[in-house]
Amino acid sequence: MADWKQKFDMSKRFQGGSKCKWEETLEIGSSKVDIWKGCPDFAPSKDIIKALTDICASENALLHQYTRGCGHSRLVTVLSKLYSALTQHEISPDSDMLISAGVYGAIYSTIFGNITNGDEVIIIEPFSDFYDFLVSMAGGVSVFVPLRLKSNSNNENSKNWAVDSAELESAFNSKTKIIIIDTPNAHLGKVYTKNELQEISNLCKKWNVLCVAIEADEFLVDESGNPFTRLNTLPDMRQRTISIGSSDTTFFLKGWKLAWSYGHTHMIKNLQISHSNSVYVCSTVLQEALAIVMEKELQLLNEDDSYFTTIIKDLHYKKQIMFDMLNSCGFKPIPSDSGIFMIADWTLLEPKIKSKLGMVLPNDFDFVKWFLENSGIQTVPLSMFFNDSHASIAKKMVRFCFNKRFETLLKAKALFEEFNNKLN
Amino acid sequence: MADWKQKFDMSKRFQGGSKCKWEETLEIGSSKVDIWKGCPDFAPSKDIIKALTDICASENALLHQYTRGCGHSRLVTVLSKLYSALTQHEISPDSDMLISAGVYGAIYSTIFGNITNGDEVIIIEPFSDFYDFLVSMAGGVSVFVPLRLKSNSNNENSKNWAVDSAELESAFNSKTKIIIIDTPNAHLGKVYTKNELQEISNLCKKWNVLCVAIEADEFLVDESGNPFTRLNTLPDMRQRTISIGSSDTTFFLKGWKLAWSYGHTHMIKNLQISHSNSVYVCSTVLQEALAIVMEKELQLLNEDDSYFTTIIKDLHYKKQIMFDMLNSCGFKPIPSDSGIFMIADWTLLEPKIKSKLGMVLPNDFDFVKWFLENSGIQTVPLSMFFNDSHASIAKKMVRFCFNKRFETLLKAKALFEEFNNKLN
Repeated sequence: MADWKQKFDMSKRFQGGSKCKWEETLEIGSSKVDIWKGCPDFAPSKDIIKALTDICASENALLHQYTRGCGHSRLVTVLSKLYSALTQHEISPDSDMLISAGVYGAIYSTIFGNITNGDEVIIIEPFSDFYDFLVSMAGGVSVFVPLRLKSNSNNENSKNWAVDSAELESAFNSKTKIIIIDTPNAHLGKVYTKNELQEISNLCKKWNVLCVAIEADEFLVDESGNPFTRLNTLPDMRQRTISIGSSDTTFFLKGWKLAWSYGHTHMIKNLQISHSNSVYVCSTVLQEALAIVMEKELQLLNEDDSYFTTIIKDLHYKKQIMFDMLNSCGFKPIPSDSGIFMIADWTLLEPKIKSKLGMVLPNDFDFVKWFLENSGIQTVPLSMFFNDSHASIAKKMVRFCFNKRFETLLKAKALFEEFNNKLN
Repeated sequence: MADWKQKFDMSKRFQGGSKCKWEETLEIGSSKVDIWKGCPDFAPSKDIIKALTDICASENALLHQYTRGCGHSRLVTVLSKLYSALTQHEISPDSDMLISAGVYGAIYSTIFGNITNGDEVIIIEPFSDFYDFLVSMAGGVSVFVPLRLKSNSNNENSKNWAVDSAELESAFNSKTKIIIIDTPNAHLGKVYTKNELQEISNLCKKWNVLCVAIEADEFLVDESGNPFTRLNTLPDMRQRTISIGSSDTTFFLKGWKLAWSYGHTHMIKNLQISHSNSVYVCSTVLQEALAIVMEKELQLLNEDDSYFTTIIKDLHYKKQIMFDMLNSCGFKPIPSDSGIFMIADWTLLEPKIKSKLGMVLPNDFDFVKWFLENSGIQTVPLSMFFNDSHASIAKKMVRFCFNKRFETLLKAKALFEEFNNKLN
């Protein structure tokens, strides 16, 4: 019997993989409030629910059957119109676009469609660990370049996270095939300046490298920060960029698992064939519902009452609440310019914890555990989103999510105040 | 610029792959009726629509967000209860089961979780071409063993399709890691006898091979044919079987893309990790709706008014209509014992086509084209589901789908009659 089992040990490509890195890495306790998960705790917008309900009521048989493998026609049609308008490129719904099973599926098709043994992939940190895993599964090698917090002043801001130019340049070589960049960076809420993106794109052109721009937070950019630039709109970058967007982030529908990739036909073809032979097709009914909602957004583009406009105002307000909560109880929050997360430095709490409680917390995982026990609030170490070799960059930082109901934020506020009273 | 493009040619593993083999192989004409696609032309059952509509109305935020990666709890719970009852094995919803993005996703996770360079995979034909493609992508080698039609009498039946014992035995060797078998065979409507499955399972035990039993048509087995045996219920087969089922076939929801795999923990772990690092998680809202419908079925198991019971009666009736249509106009239909397809031999039409029209049709693709032009009815060459080396086995056969609205079947009947009048 030992022999039976041994033959069916996991294939080498998955060894080291886990079912859920989160559950296995983070000792998740019983949090009194959820301001740590990226999932919202409110129902999707009325438009989304209405679209899905109407489809159910229509008894349209076709909407429950296979649709076009690379993307439901109605959805790729509206998305190609939207991005043709936003990028001033003509994007074909058929040959320049792919609908995937979430960002996971989009990255999977990108990596497997392009990477073979020995190809190198540069990944800008902080990142989502599955990028690295997919690269190594496909036989590639990941090279990590971190964003580092430049200043340590009191004027900290997500803008101050930047790559070191020399470090970035030295990561490129003749084996480099792809660079993966979250732009905006979802974890930090950092919106890259045009100059920063230009630096990356110059290196892509010099080394003939494909830039995978994960622009999932593209519609969640605060008006007060850097204006958002789509990477493929920089000179000569159209043919070397795959841009990835997602319903998970745009409409906070993480359970719908729909993402889109668009780019030059020559690149997208690789993704389409990779997708067609692995997942084949995504849910028709959810693609139809998303298309209906996107059609409305396209009509309302830049109008005050569009979802895209109101959601930014909503997030701006919630962000302020989160900032004030963290600030008032001894964290040093780093204002976020996009997305749903805020990073906070807990260095200022250390002397208090030591003098009041006589404790020294050796690392961020210890802090997260201690903070949960003493405040009832779960949080997430930012170092989880760096490669081990660069984890020290984020060792004093934790990540919170502010995209929650106001009631949830108020409950968190009460817990923060209680914690603060305990500590002072 | 030539240099730019060359670097981004498709990765080798996908070369030879296509976006849609169907569209590229079959010259699909303008059919006056659809009795060729596997998708039904009727809306899903009221229970399914109600479940999805109720979820929309509930405003339950969680149902639109990520669920447990390896399967939504409510769904794996009901499925583990169902299959524990059906197989008399105790199946853990957490460690013995995976929810995938359709059968594609289930086979992907099985192949990538187990197969590495040089491993051999036996595939019983007729099969779906993506099995072979996934095997070669993972570095494995496919070995094909066809079902062959044993007799050529007038009493033909899907039971008469069988593997040749010597051919099957010679396919196994020390490199064989997996055998993939559709049981029942969906294309032929063939339900394997217990003896036939026993022969396969003896070879699996002799060579220590994992049997991947695609039992997607398990709930569509006609009562008049061989009783259906689940492969993992044969002696000592539990620990060497991955069983795969699907909402695509069970509830005719091909656009929902939900399949389930279950088996021994040691095997399922490989699938779970492969899935978790590629697709990660399937749509929560559709999993919840499927769970609700499955819970009802579990309660009604074997009752006369359950969906599982009524659907078999419904298919039996439609099957008879299809048989009579084909029979009355010169095809030799091969009665199907399960699923939604019926195979028909067109040999008897050849002399008529020759004498009446002075034409000889060299192969099945020519016949399909000619038949469409002369009857308005699209059909599918069965040889598409055999490896090229075995395509001759099916060269005189085409596949029809009878799981259509009665109106559609009546429309087809009129077209068959018109064709018959033209030919006689």
